[in-house]
Amino acid sequence: MITVTKTNALRFHQHGLPKDVLRMETLPLHPLAEDEVLIRVLASPVNPSDLGTLAGSYGALPKLPAVAGREGVGEIVEAGPAANGLAPGDRVLLPEGAGGWREWMTAPARGLIPVPASIPIEQAAMASINPPTARLLLDSFVDLRPGDWVAQNAANSAVGHYLIQMARARGVHTLNFVRDPAWISRLRDLGADEVLVDEDASAQAARKLTGGRGAKLALNSVGGPSAIRLIKTLADGGTLVTFGGMTGEPVRFPTRHLIFHDIRLRGFWLNRWKQDATGEQRADLFADIFAQMADGTLRAPVESPHPLADHATALEQAARGGRRGKILFKMTDA
Amino acid sequence: MITVTKTNALRFHQHGLPKDVLRMETLPLHPLAEDEVLIRVLASPVNPSDLGTLAGSYGALPKLPAVAGREGVGEIVEAGPAANGLAPGDRVLLPEGAGGWREWMTAPARGLIPVPASIPIEQAAMASINPPTARLLLDSFVDLRPGDWVAQNAANSAVGHYLIQMARARGVHTLNFVRDPAWISRLRDLGADEVLVDEDASAQAARKLTGGRGAKLALNSVGGPSAIRLIKTLADGGTLVTFGGMTGEPVRFPTRHLIFHDIRLRGFWLNRWKQDATGEQRADLFADIFAQMADGTLRAPVESPHPLADHATALEQAARGGRRGKILFKMTDA
Repeated sequence: MITVTKTNALRFHQHGLPKDVLRMETLPLHPLAEDEVLIRVLASPVNPSDLGTLAGSYGALPKLPAVAGREGVGEIVEAGPAANGLAPGDRVLLPEGAGGWREWMTAPARGLIPVPASIPIEQAAMASINPPTARLLLDSFVDLRPGDWVAQNAANSAVGHYLIQMARARGVHTLNFVRDPAWISRLRDLGADEVLVDEDASAQAARKLTGGRGAKLALNSVGGPSAIRLIKTLADGGTLVTFGGMTGEPVRFPTRHLIFHDIRLRGFWLNRWKQDATGEQRADLFADIFAQMADGTLRAPVESPHPLADHATALEQAARGGRRGKILFKMTDA
Repeated sequence: MITVTKTNALRFHQHGLPKDVLRMETLPLHPLAEDEVLIRVLASPVNPSDLGTLAGSYGALPKLPAVAGREGVGEIVEAGPAANGLAPGDRVLLPEGAGGWREWMTAPARGLIPVPASIPIEQAAMASINPPTARLLLDSFVDLRPGDWVAQNAANSAVGHYLIQMARARGVHTLNFVRDPAWISRLRDLGADEVLVDEDASAQAARKLTGGRGAKLALNSVGGPSAIRLIKTLADGGTLVTFGGMTGEPVRFPTRHLIFHDIRLRGFWLNRWKQDATGEQRADLFADIFAQMADGTLRAPVESPHPLADHATALEQAARGGRRGKILFKMTDA
């Protein structure tokens, strides 16, 4: 048995830009309780909400100081005698709020979600936030049938990728807006039905591409004029769901669309769903996501894995546009 | 039997300001068909949507030239032999789209809604648009129970009056915003639970008045910062319904409220409801409204009735703030 008494971790004591507030620190690990496990963190990505958490603009903030990193995957190295059936060698999603940008952690076994070993580590590290978001966006607002259209902006994001893949698997068409034309062919290859550059000139074209039917659902994580363009792709009675972009440009309230076209505006926040969901609902959701990750239906691109020590470069890249995939910390060579 | 072959009517040939486009004209009446009735118009109000129709900004516009006036009440003076059971002396709501600012009209009997003679003419003249709007706003979006709160702006409008009266009859509390403090005591007398001046300083106070519960439903016909104040009165998961103010100031898209507080934004347009409703649903709705008008539960104030010839003054007053009630054309001394 190995003995681990401390861990490297990327921690912040106050809110601000990553380069100003994020520091590598050595933190003690407490001895394992009977119902706890010791986890070696394998990988943890950098999500937009991590940047929001560091900046202090996200909707739910941890008590400071806190280790950064909202999700990740780890391997159990040691398990207490009451560890809920978990054993060394099992992979699990990192528990929420524990901070994934570290090498080791201890955690109560209860509530940990096991991850099949057949799923690539990089993909498993990104399973907690974006795939459930894409899945719940598709399922929670309108009744989508094969042949219906869903529109989204920031279609090259991780959620965008998962959404295209999930929709395609159900026969639902996607109308995708991207800022960089380089994504057009990449998203088409992924199964996107239509991909357009997110600019005023595209709004008219977009609606025609649906055969004039309009989208039933539009998903906004950008805001600004891009959200208005999405609204214009909607059929009468359609729903725009905003799930991101709260730090972006504001949009003017499209009163006319609400009144005369019965457009509905909603918001989605995964944290709220997680609070309200039963253990069984969570388990079902992840079983489904893992099955689609294992058979290759779901997969998001990773730009480059970084060791924790590379955090300055990693976070600088994460804040930049023009990436081809997610920035990820990888703590082992596995 | 009287013979009526023509009528005075306020007609417009192009869109613009009432003073520029509205003209008193004499129009011929065609001989009555078997399934038609001849109606003497008794009264017809000036609604905000009449001004929008004249201006060309309303969501559904008549073919020009058109007689203005979207609603009113009349008395049947002559009925064809196949007039659906209607007889001289019966009062009816004017048919939609016929233009109520006139003295006489012929109309197909089918679909006309009879009005009990016990309802005062002025109140009956205002029954087609604002009371159904108030009633459907209360019923169509959230499940309101006694003790729940509904917030509204422009609470001194006709819809605002009806809404206060209907909510009170069900034990639902109302939180009302008005621009002019003179309305505070008048709306309290009408049964409003709370009335506040619609300004930034009131937003904090408003939420406290609900005992911290927040409103389940908020009704917006103003837009601009007033709509944002309404959103701030809502409980998590609450719905803001916009049903007017499309020519007013735009509102900034409240992304943060949508995501983190699950606020829902909807629109309501009576025309859409009327298109989708069955004859039975309309009949039920008006039966209920007439019962509440007859027993005095529903009543909106009228500032001053005008003869048609007074249209310049009437429309000038209708466009002004600071009124105590609706401007109405009254064609007879009844």
